[in-house]
Amino acid sequence: MKTSNGVASSLLLRLDSRSHTPLHEQLFEGIRARILAGALAPGLRLPSSRQLATELDVARSTVLQALDALTAEGYLVAQAGSCTRVAPELPILSGDRSREPGRPAAARASSSGERGPRLAASARALKPTPVGAPRLGAAPRAFRPGVPALDLFPTALWARTVSRVHARASTGLLDGGDPSGHAPLREAIATHVSVSRGVRCSPAQVFITAGTQQAFDEVLRLALNRGDSVWVEDPGYPGARRAVLAAGGRPVPIPVDGDGLDVGAGLARAPRARVALVAPSHQYPLGVTLSLARRMALLRWAERTRSLIIEDDYDSEFRHRGRPLTALQGLDDAGCVVYVGTFSKSMFPGLRLGFLVVPPSLVDIFSAARAASPAPASTLEQAALARFLAEGHFARHLRRMRAAYRERGEALLDALVAEGSGVLAPRPCDTGMQLCASLAAPLSDLRVRDEAARLGVEVAALSDYFLGRRRDAGLVFGFGGVRPDDMRTGTRALARAIEAARRRDLRTSPPHPRGLPR
Amino acid sequence: MKTSNGVASSLLLRLDSRSHTPLHEQLFEGIRARILAGALAPGLRLPSSRQLATELDVARSTVLQALDALTAEGYLVAQAGSCTRVAPELPILSGDRSREPGRPAAARASSSGERGPRLAASARALKPTPVGAPRLGAAPRAFRPGVPALDLFPTALWARTVSRVHARASTGLLDGGDPSGHAPLREAIATHVSVSRGVRCSPAQVFITAGTQQAFDEVLRLALNRGDSVWVEDPGYPGARRAVLAAGGRPVPIPVDGDGLDVGAGLARAPRARVALVAPSHQYPLGVTLSLARRMALLRWAERTRSLIIEDDYDSEFRHRGRPLTALQGLDDAGCVVYVGTFSKSMFPGLRLGFLVVPPSLVDIFSAARAASPAPASTLEQAALARFLAEGHFARHLRRMRAAYRERGEALLDALVAEGSGVLAPRPCDTGMQLCASLAAPLSDLRVRDEAARLGVEVAALSDYFLGRRRDAGLVFGFGGVRPDDMRTGTRALARAIEAARRRDLRTSPPHPRGLPR
Repeated sequence: MKTSNGVASSLLLRLDSRSHTPLHEQLFEGIRARILAGALAPGLRLPSSRQLATELDVARSTVLQALDALTAEGYLVAQAGSCTRVAPELPILSGDRSREPGRPAAARASSSGERGPRLAASARALKPTPVGAPRLGAAPRAFRPGVPALDLFPTALWARTVSRVHARASTGLLDGGDPSGHAPLREAIATHVSVSRGVRCSPAQVFITAGTQQAFDEVLRLALNRGDSVWVEDPGYPGARRAVLAAGGRPVPIPVDGDGLDVGAGLARAPRARVALVAPSHQYPLGVTLSLARRMALLRWAERTRSLIIEDDYDSEFRHRGRPLTALQGLDDAGCVVYVGTFSKSMFPGLRLGFLVVPPSLVDIFSAARAASPAPASTLEQAALARFLAEGHFARHLRRMRAAYRERGEALLDALVAEGSGVLAPRPCDTGMQLCASLAAPLSDLRVRDEAARLGVEVAALSDYFLGRRRDAGLVFGFGGVRPDDMRTGTRALARAIEAARRRDLRTSPPHPRGLPR
Repeated sequence: MKTSNGVASSLLLRLDSRSHTPLHEQLFEGIRARILAGALAPGLRLPSSRQLATELDVARSTVLQALDALTAEGYLVAQAGSCTRVAPELPILSGDRSREPGRPAAARASSSGERGPRLAASARALKPTPVGAPRLGAAPRAFRPGVPALDLFPTALWARTVSRVHARASTGLLDGGDPSGHAPLREAIATHVSVSRGVRCSPAQVFITAGTQQAFDEVLRLALNRGDSVWVEDPGYPGARRAVLAAGGRPVPIPVDGDGLDVGAGLARAPRARVALVAPSHQYPLGVTLSLARRMALLRWAERTRSLIIEDDYDSEFRHRGRPLTALQGLDDAGCVVYVGTFSKSMFPGLRLGFLVVPPSLVDIFSAARAASPAPASTLEQAALARFLAEGHFARHLRRMRAAYRERGEALLDALVAEGSGVLAPRPCDTGMQLCASLAAPLSDLRVRDEAARLGVEVAALSDYFLGRRRDAGLVFGFGGVRPDDMRTGTRALARAIEAARRRDLRTSPPHPRGLPR
């Protein structure tokens, strides 16, 4: 770099005419990097655009384009007589570091070890997903819980519905839309849940969400003061306790038995809890139903203490035989229940649409909380789903899926009896797309799960769903996404995994004690 | 109701054969309501199904269907000899309330006044949207800020792209998908922002979000401990301070002048802030750009204190002339900047898609935080957007929009000069789809806004965007969604609104003092 009297005689830049990056961009980046590195000093006068064009063998317009951009961003200042200088008061980012322009930020930052922004204490505690745990994002295998029968989804029908809505998209639909949700969808949902789930509501009580997790988050943030207790089922859905923690609440594990959540235990452990988060119609992962007596006791408690019940009704529409059980919300005369529904199971998980039904007394608060927010989900997808419901496609799909899940559930039961090595005791399964089986032998369900993963079979370990001291061993199977023919292959591999876990247990005695806290 | 020896001789029910509700549903609901009301006592034996069928004049299968459902839900117990009893231990919800089955829950609960669940202190403070404030959900009118040129959006092209993706939807796409976002979309975004925004990143650093607000929430929750300070621009985007409060942080208003955020004031007021939330390329609502000297000072502060900078880059791709200004992220060598982008302006608000670019050192933490979450947005829409970007439609659309916003911005400036009553001093506008004008007369911008709303014109009041003591008066105009021909109509109505506000001020002197805290 030669400078004389504060004038750069040359920029010592070389441009690559074969690069994909336009020449003016290369020139912009080259000059910027030299300024940032201090190689072109503040106040330095640059050669004229004509000179630069000659030196670099490019058109003068290319040079002017680069100089204009550098001036707009404050690296250069234009002065009278078309003279251009490096901005006189340019702070250099940090003097003690030799800059290497062009070296990507990734390389620089990753080599800095302990540097980089500090995060919240809770974020620093985050761990990578444990080995063998069902990993979202990877392609589902038998028997990942929570996967519906995507192979039976009427893709073409849904695609046609979506296309029709998009083709006629008004600017109203392209715009943000109603923060509470697309009105026709709220109406269609109100009709559907009153007919098929015994939920009593008007469309104004329905708020669209981007799925169950967002629904939990929203309700809990409105309901909880910091440190408030929340009843959560034990064992239970891990997303429920995560949402409680995220909202600053304290999850209190309440045991679940054959009649569902033990309301008496809840009354004893946390009588002043602000919220109870339950899945009354089809508990996850045990699959039990909350008995009528306990439903009544739960509602009485909520009414008396003015607490809120969040009813997680994720898949009970899929009762294999007979009429789906009526929602708890339908029994609620005191306005204590917020009903949480989702289309992740009834349509498909990638849709990211669900809904809340809030008591009439809370409609204004929920509306106000959303007033300044954007729409809860894609307006066009909301409109497509509204049409899918209103035209009856959804009800027909549900009916077909009920039959399919009955068939798949029975196929899995048969296969488990035939291949279960005598150590698996399946619980009754009359609803949904999951099945829980106790592990009868003194085997660690975590070990069986890991061995199964090695053999290409995905099951969840029951003990992973516990929060308190009790840790029953068992396996949770999702059969929704598994074709009946594939059941046997999966259960055969599972039998081998159980055998392998058993051999390992023999080698590494004493075996992992079943049911004890880990 | 006649009962003898604990046997009901009749249910005194009447079914309506012309109702839309199936007969078995009517019977189910009728018996259930009588049990809940205590009219059918616990342990009472019901007439046989044959008797009931005769009494009600329906098929026996109809009766059996209802009795089965009631048994499944625990209201009845089946006993030997096909005898059915009301469940013996049924708690009644609350004895002191006369139940009226069939009366909707809404009516009951709304009449209960102070009853219903308690909520968090923060929720009780929620107020309905103030009159005149831009209300999301209602159809946008001239000049609502934040509305892009939806009339120029290539709806047919987008519909075709969406249709093609839906028609070939694999089960992988129907399934939940990657919690970090659809991989091809992350790739397309990494390419786009590096070319058009000077952002340096790999696809692994890109995380898909459901828009800017969700992005702020996610980053702030990971970055803040309770009570941590956050620099927010004053005046600034209200969603930024809302997100800070929701994450438990303390927003510290930092003044904005012609060079953008006053970094020196930030250093003086909250040197130990954990996060700075800024819009360096195009500040909202003032429209200024953060100067290069301040960019450097901001980055130096963040590096030294290991703080995080959230760069809100919501619309700076729409620089009306010349090259868009390079993102702050491109200057960040220490890995302090999280870049927040959105497709709400560049595509349309109803899409609900945006993205984060996090520093390399934070990729693992963000991945771990999302590992247990569902996909951030509809997988099929993510796939469609990826294709729209990869096929070059997005870049072409941006180019057309840049020209359109230049044209619309100039039309608004011309109209304001012609009709602005001499009291409006528009600030320079070279980017995006908003324009801010100072109100020169001693007029309350809130009053002008309200008068304008009465005349069908939507403008935002600048003083509403302030958080600290300073409250400059001005009007914020969105011109993105306004056709050039409609500009004049809107500004003429606005001139009448200003005249009306002026007359009111004369009547109700002393006038609202401009710039003072309210």
